[in-house]
Parts: sequence; structure tokens; C-alpha cells
Amino acid sequence: MTRPGLILKLQCPDQPGIVSKISGYVAGYAGNLIEFAQFTDKLSGRFFARLEIETGGLEVEVEDFIEGFGTLGRALRAEWHFRRLPYRMRTAVLVTRTDHCLHEVLWRTKLGELPVEITSVIGNREDCRSVSEQAGIRFHSVEMDGAAREAGFETIRGILHDEKVELVVLARFMQILPDAFCREFEGRVINIHHSFLPAFIGANPYKQAYERGVKLIGATCHYVTADLDAGPIIEQQVERVQHFHTPQDLVRLGRDCERAALARGIRYHVHDRTIIDGHRAIVFPD
Amino acid sequence: MTRPGLILKLQCPDQPGIVSKISGYVAGYAGNLIEFAQFTDKLSGRFFARLEIETGGLEVEVEDFIEGFGTLGRALRAEWHFRRLPYRMRTAVLVTRTDHCLHEVLWRTKLGELPVEITSVIGNREDCRSVSEQAGIRFHSVEMDGAAREAGFETIRGILHDEKVELVVLARFMQILPDAFCREFEGRVINIHHSFLPAFIGANPYKQAYERGVKLIGATCHYVTADLDAGPIIEQQVERVQHFHTPQDLVRLGRDCERAALARGIRYHVHDRTIIDGHRAIVFPD
Amino acid sequence: MTRPGLILKLQCPDQPGIVSKISGYVAGYAGNLIEFAQFTDKLSGRFFARLEIETGGLEVEVEDFIEGFGTLGRALRAEWHFRRLPYRMRTAVLVTRTDHCLHEVLWRTKLGELPVEITSVIGNREDCRSVSEQAGIRFHSVEMDGAAREAGFETIRGILHDEKVELVVLARFMQILPDAFCREFEGRVINIHHSFLPAFIGANPYKQAYERGVKLIGATCHYVTADLDAGPIIEQQVERVQHFHTPQDLVRLGRDCERAALARGIRYHVHDRTIIDGHRAIVFPD
Amino acid sequence: MTRPGLILKLQCPDQPGIVSKISGYVAGYAGNLIEFAQFTDKLSGRFFARLEIETGGLEVEVEDFIEGFGTLGRALRAEWHFRRLPYRMRTAVLVTRTDHCLHEVLWRTKLGELPVEITSVIGNREDCRSVSEQAGIRFHSVEMDGAAREAGFETIRGILHDEKVELVVLARFMQILPDAFCREFEGRVINIHHSFLPAFIGANPYKQAYERGVKLIGATCHYVTADLDAGPIIEQQVERVQHFHTPQDLVRLGRDCERAALARGIRYHVHDRTIIDGHRAIVFPD
Repeated sequence: MTRPGLILKLQCPDQPGIVSKISGYVAGYAGNLIEFAQFTDKLSGRFFARLEIETGGLEVEVEDFIEGFGTLGRALRAEWHFRRLPYRMRTAVLVTRTDHCLHEVLWRTKLGELPVEITSVIGNREDCRSVSEQAGIRFHSVEMDGAAREAGFETIRGILHDEKVELVVLARFMQILPDAFCREFEGRVINIHHSFLPAFIGANPYKQAYERGVKLIGATCHYVTADLDAGPIIEQQVERVQHFHTPQDLVRLGRDCERAALARGIRYHVHDRTIIDGHRAIVFPD
Repeated sequence: MTRPGLILKLQCPDQPGIVSKISGYVAGYAGNLIEFAQFTDKLSGRFFARLEIETGGLEVEVEDFIEGFGTLGRALRAEWHFRRLPYRMRTAVLVTRTDHCLHEVLWRTKLGELPVEITSVIGNREDCRSVSEQAGIRFHSVEMDGAAREAGFETIRGILHDEKVELVVLARFMQILPDAFCREFEGRVINIHHSFLPAFIGANPYKQAYERGVKLIGATCHYVTADLDAGPIIEQQVERVQHFHTPQDLVRLGRDCERAALARGIRYHVHDRTIIDGHRAIVFPD
Repeated sequence: MTRPGLILKLQCPDQPGIVSKISGYVAGYAGNLIEFAQFTDKLSGRFFARLEIETGGLEVEVEDFIEGFGTLGRALRAEWHFRRLPYRMRTAVLVTRTDHCLHEVLWRTKLGELPVEITSVIGNREDCRSVSEQAGIRFHSVEMDGAAREAGFETIRGILHDEKVELVVLARFMQILPDAFCREFEGRVINIHHSFLPAFIGANPYKQAYERGVKLIGATCHYVTADLDAGPIIEQQVERVQHFHTPQDLVRLGRDCERAALARGIRYHVHDRTIIDGHRAIVFPD
Repeated sequence: MTRPGLILKLQCPDQPGIVSKISGYVAGYAGNLIEFAQFTDKLSGRFFARLEIETGGLEVEVEDFIEGFGTLGRALRAEWHFRRLPYRMRTAVLVTRTDHCLHEVLWRTKLGELPVEITSVIGNREDCRSVSEQAGIRFHSVEMDGAAREAGFETIRGILHDEKVELVVLARFMQILPDAFCREFEGRVINIHHSFLPAFIGANPYKQAYERGVKLIGATCHYVTADLDAGPIIEQQVERVQHFHTPQDLVRLGRDCERAALARGIRYHVHDRTIIDGHRAIVFPD
């Protein structure tokens, strides 16, 4: 949406009349509902929604509109979130050695596909410095090997706070995040795992895939939780492989899955098209 | 939906407050909105919606609820349609020689995937008689060769009227429907074309695909209009092929695309998940 | 291949000149090499090949040609196998309740896509009897519950021996094969597992997939070994799913993956397009 | 292949014993056959092959080995081509405005996925200059509008000759090549067309796709011939779309198809994995 507007994300216990109440609130102040995606989980009895509202014709101030929604939101026992548009999300990218995912994020950002403001790239190796700097993005080098690991994460936390980062993208960052870090940034860290989760959890998934002789490999973009590789999945991509593909070929073919899955995952997140529901992610794709 | 309910399909010019008005009508009589899929076509300024409503708790008679909607529908200058659930759509299948699509429809119907009542199978060859009769479905043999063609279509029209058929499925029926027939059953005839339309319109698409050396073949399920192979597309499926596949291999691999695309296309139609909009079909998939 | 011919499958340690020696043997007796697929595994140093040979113009008897190959085969320290064409493989299908995979196998066999002779269907429930008998295939009912399990497998073994079965297809057969059975029929039992292995090993994979919130589900056709769900994979198929799909929807969508993966897996096996190499299967697709 | 070696591509009329003769020649001088992909087109009676030969242990000079093959090649009435490895193909990229395909080629080249030496980027607009120069590649600006078109192509010819270019990649180059140019560089110009050919030939395919309401869009990588958009297809990629995708969305989603199809097409060409056969391309994928 290029015109001024709002995105409302909401979840609450299901009850009859919810859609009418919410859309009635919007219509009551002459908001123009551009998109209203909903999902009622019949198994859990929960309701999830994403609204895109043009506010050009609103009969009240946008701030007032947002505040006024609280009465309805509380009545529905909802969790909700408004985002004012246009918006560019402040995003840091964490990397180690390989730069294909970083490249993809930088390229799509420059093209205007991802409404993010990349605040900096943070690496525990120097490999991605030149790619970052060539794109005009500051690169922080953070030592994390061995005993330096704990202090390294403190340094990263500091950078994220200093730069007011809202989204952390792990673009093949080869370090396991400490639990406290996961909790602090819950729902705001996106990882790309180089396998079709939950197959091949952990290290060296392409080698595992080769040894298992699978006929499809994949990549998984997910929210990071303290439970390694078990966070809510946002997007997955697969590619067909054959017996003649070596582990190196799987790495090569897998890169394309990783880039595609990560780019889509980030896009869905920054457009507020995801709602986390326990171990799962509701995704309203575009 | 297995409990009593309604599906409402609707299209009208877009205007602010539509969602609120429609959902408000449902909520006003304590209808329980199970699903409310919408789409606003920003290019054409039209609004499309599909509602699934549980009517167990309705505070008025279902007939009254349906009739009462007319006031709102007319105010919105809408075209709309209510369907009472549960529903099984009376469906005739037209065939010629090959039986794989017929097989698929019969099998999925028996399994409960397609809520249809197959009234009969109509063929201009005898090849599909045994498959039909083995499934307990009446088979009509209609002569259509050469001069018999016009009378043949009259016979088919008669059968469709006698059997109160609501949906006609062309399951590899190798006859072009007369224009008058297309108009009479507009929006109620689904065809499976054995190519990835609009590539390879007309006869022998697999041979055309072979000669062109494409790397993917496909099948297209679409509504039939007087304009051959140009009706609104409901679903398409593709399959990767290589240089070593002969035209016969393409036929074999294409069968799987055809079966899958036709089955989904029918499913979307009988669940009222399609709305025709000129040359295009809005499809709310499940 | 419809003309008289041979398929030769072979594996041996790699060495220079193998292709020349093998093709030289064929050419030496005026065999016409229709297809010669090979694969050299650079990691393990093994060579795998599949040859399709027209024998119409052979200058020796086919039996002699086959026997004569032994000298070369032994010199190459190879394992090899000749199959005379045309051939229809004697195949038994084991089932429990659901019949979609059985249906697919019967349908493709009838259509001529699978060169198999279905000797019988064996079920530990009665559900698939009518489908089998309608197709003119004998149905054996074998009691396998609780204490009857061991005797049940003995009964099955007896049937397989009596009917000279060469291939056993587990078409959603919900019993774990005893180790001795797996060993006896090694490389001759094909299973369809209703998940994208190695994800969701074991029971109820669609429920597991739902709870994990994956965005793609799949099915895996593999050879059965004593190590449950870990046998060499022949074929995998996936289907995209979304948050609104219930476990029941995953079952429905997964059926299409299962049918497609099983049909292809059987086809590759009966056309001798697979070579088992430890935990992996070499597959030369057509 | 990183060790010294040869790739031999060959096509000729089929005859018994071909594989034996060719592999016998290689083995006769102790060449190590790493890969021998063949295809016999039973419809046309032609034989196609690609051999990868390690030459480290050759008992003759490589030049001699290549020359000596001529006797056999002529006896087979073959067209053939040897390539000495390692090899980097001198490649020019032609562009107009959009840079996503150029970006992809540059990125994959840098990563080592494509063994090419990019000699320069040639554009009839300035848009791609900075991307090229940032990657250290010379950018030629060539005026081609209106009356300048003919002279522009002469300029391009001159650059291609000066830079000894072997492969021309049209990376969304929005000019139709003159017939004489097509003939001069026959089999050495690769284009990416932004549709699933042969659907939507010509201008603005995404708009055409939108209006036709297709459910899958695609991109096609093909050799350029004088017959617009009808050259031999090397690779195609598709992406699923829905009714809510605007023409702009199709452009966005299509970019990913274009990048993937072009990258694979170039890879197959520079690895000599393609053989042109009239309107079709034989592709031995890796």
C-alpha cells in the first residue's frame, strides 16, 4: 500500500459476530478496508485476522482510531497490533561466511521488494564485509569463537539496541543463539535453515540428505525460539535432486531454496502477514 | 461443512463498508460466519466474496434469512447466490474414448472428496461404458459422428434436462460444443484441456508440445465458453519433461496433470469456491 | 520396449574402460543398444549401469548371450541381472483399510502403465475386498490382530511363495514387517510412507505435520528394510499446504502425493530403473 | 571437472555399435570416461551424446587424441565438438533497463557456479552501468533508439568480435535481433523470455497472463533464432499465482522464474550440456 494506511493484526478466542464487529469499527469511522484476511482455527477455537485499511478518508485522527479500537479489542480478549503505513522495518542481518542469503536480502531491498531499512550487517567472520560495504551498509565484526561467544552476543545485543533494530535476520549465521537472547527478541528473529525441516535438524543437513538419498532437498524459513530448529515455520521451498548429485551439488541447489524461502519469509513478516500461534505460524501470503 | 449451513457467493462494485454491511447482516440474525473470503479487484473496482455460514443458531428461518438479504444485495448492486448445505451437485460426465479423467471423478466422488451426485455418463463412443456401469452409473451412448452431430447434442441437452443436471464435466470429451449449448449452460460446463493454456490451443497438444521441445507440460481446467479453449481458467497443473520423452510419454505424464487439475477444478466449483469475472475466474482454494 | 529385448542392470567397482567393455560385448554380438544409462559414484568409486538391448538382430541365442556375459561380469567383479522383455512382474499388493493406493495401482496396471501381473491383494481388513474383486483380482483376508500377527505373516509368506510373487507392494499396509520377512524379500518390497521422509517417521505423520506447521507435505516411496522407514528412497512427492488446512485436509492432499509417488516408484522398479546401493537407491527415471 | 579433461559433444545418425565405438576410442588411449550421457531419438533416428573424459592418464597428446577422433567421427557422419577443461567461456551480457537477470549472472559467476569470463555488459540504456562497474565489469553504452538501431547492432557486433565473445546472454535486452545477427551467432545467443513459451509470445507477457487469468506464470530460457521467441528451449520455470495477484505482482514473482531459468540455461550451455536439434534442445542436466 503506498497511500497512508494501517495494518491491524489480531488474534482472540473465536465468537460469533467477530468479523462484523471489527469491520463495523472500521466502517464506523469511514476507514476503507482494502483487505481483510481471517482464519478461524476450528481445532483450537481461535480467530486470527489481518486488516489493511486506507486511512485517507478516516473521520477521526489515526491515533484516535487506533486508541479507540482498544475498547473492542479488550472486549474480544484479543491481542492486536497496529502498524502505520508506509513503513520500513529496521532490520539487522547476521552472517558468518556464506553470503548468498545476504546478497539476496540486499538485492531485494534495493529493488523495493522488501520494505526494510537495513541498519547493519553483523558478522563473526570477515567474509561478508565487502558485500555489505559495497551496498553502503555498515558491517560490524564481532568475535564469537570459543570463550568470546558470550561477550560476542552481548556486543550484538548492544548493537541491536543502539540501532533500534526491530527484526533480526539470521542469513546463514552459524551460531546457536543463547536462550535469553531468543526470549528477548521472541517473534523478531527469522532464521533460514538449510533443510526441509523437521528433516535433518542440526549440522550439515546437505550431507545428511545425501546419505539418506532423498529425492527432494529443501530450505525452511522460521522464527527462532529457544528450541533449536523448532520455531514456527513461515515458508519452505524444495528442489528435486537425483542420485548423481554430490553433497556439493546439494549445497549449490540448496542455495536457491534458501534464498527463495528466506526472501519470502522476510517479506511476509515485514508486511505483517504472519501471526505466531504457539508452534505454528499463520501466514496470509501475497 | 457437515452441519446445516449456507454458502453465499457475491460480486458487486466495490464501496467502503461492504464487509461490515455483509457481515453485519449475518451477525444481525446470529448466523455464525465460518469463513469469509473476499477479494477487491483494485483494477476493475469490483468486490468478490464467498461466505460460509453455520445456520444452526439463526434467529430466523433460513428461507427468510436468504430472502431478507435481497434488500442489501440490491442496495449493493450485487449479483449473489445462496447454496444450502449439505449439498450434492447433480453432475453429468461427458466422455469419448479415454477414461482416466472419468475414473478420477468416480473415484473421488466415491471417496467423498467431491460432493456431487453423478446422474449419468454420456459418451459418443462405447469405451467408457464398463467403467461407468461398474461404478453403478448409467451410461448413455450418443451417436455424434458426421451428420449425427447436431442431433447428438440435442439428445445430450434432453438428457441434461431430464436428469436435472447442474454441472457438466467434459472429461476428455472430444467434440466442440455448439455455441448455443455453451450459452445455455454458461458457467456450468467444466472442461479439462490437455495443455498448459494458452499454449497449444486446439488439437493434439502433446504432439505440439513435443515438437516445440518444452521442458514442462501441463493441463488446464476451465469453464467452457463459445470461444474455444479461452474460457475462465480454474486450475492448472504442470509436470517437468525432458528431451527423451516421446509424444507417448507426454500423453502418459500429462494424464496425471489432467486428473489432478480436473479434480481440483470440480472441487472448487461444487464448493462454490469460484466466481466468474469475465475472462477470469476468482478461485478461493481450500 | 515392445520388441524382444533385454535389460541389464549392473554394479561394480569403477575402473577405466568399463563402458567400452560392456558396450563392446553387446556390439560384438550385434545387440542393438537402445539405452545405456550409467552413473559413476565418485565418492564411493562404484559404477552403476542399466542397458536396454534389442535382441532381434543378435547373432547368438539370447541365452548364450546372457551366459557369455558372465566372463566379463566376473572380471569386473560386478553384480548384474538380466531381464528378458517383454516382462510382466508378478506382484502382490498388501493393504489394510484405505484403498486409494490400491486403486491407483490397479488403474495404472489396467491402462498398461505398469507392466505387472497382480497375483492377488492381501488384506488384514475386509475394506479392500470389493475394489479388488471388481478388478478381477483375488483378495486374501489374513487375520493379523494381536496374537494372530505372527501366524498372519506366515500365511502371507505362504501366499507369496504359492503365487510366485516377485514384488510386494505395501499400499498403506498398516503393519510393521518382521525382520526375517524384510530380509527374505530384501529389495522386493516397496512401501509408500505418508510423509516426506525422514521427517515424521512412524505413526500419524499428517497429524505430526499439522502440529509442526509445515508448509509442504509429502509422501515417500521406498524399499523396505528391517530399519523402519529408513530403506532406500525411490521417489518423493510434495504438495504445498497452508495454515488453514486441518489434519483431515492434509490426509486428503497427501493421498495425491502417495498415489503419485507409489505409482512412480513401482514403475521404476518393474522397469529395472532402480539399483540399490546401501541406504540409497540409484534411479534412472523415464 | 577440475582436473584436466575434455568434453565431447556429438550427434549423428543412429546405428548399432555407436556407444561401443566411441567408448572404445576413449578406452583405446586410456582416457577415463567420467560421464557418458546419450540419447537416441527413436523418432528421428539420430544419436546424441556428451562425454566427459579425464585426460590425465591419456597415452597420447590431447591434441592427437582430438585429431584422431576425426576418422571415427567422419565414419559416423557425425557433427562433434571437443572442449578442453578447465574452461571459462567468454560471455557478453546484453541488457536494457531491469537488472535482476544481470545481477544473477554476475553473482553466480563470482560464486563459481558459472564457468564464464564476462567480457563486458552492453546496454542500450544506462540503468545497468553501476551494477556492472561495481562488479568490475566494463559497461558499453550503445544507442539503439529509432534510426540508431542498425548502427547500434553494428557496434555490438564490433564489440563481440573485439572481445572474442563466445556466448551472448540477453538478460532482458528489449530489442529484437536482426536476422543476420541471429544467423551469425547461431547457437551462441541465449535469451530469457518472461513467459512460459509458447504462451504469451511477444510484448508484455505478464499483462497478457493477467488478462488470461492463468494460475501459473513462467519464464523460458532459449536459444535465439531469427524466428522470434521460437528458438530451442533450454529451461523453463513456473510459479503458482492467484486471482489477487496484479500484473505488478506477476512481474515480481516472474523475476524469480526468470533468474532461475536463465541461470540454469547458461549453466547447461557453458558446461556443454545442450545439443541443438532443429527446433528442440537436448539437455543433459546436472
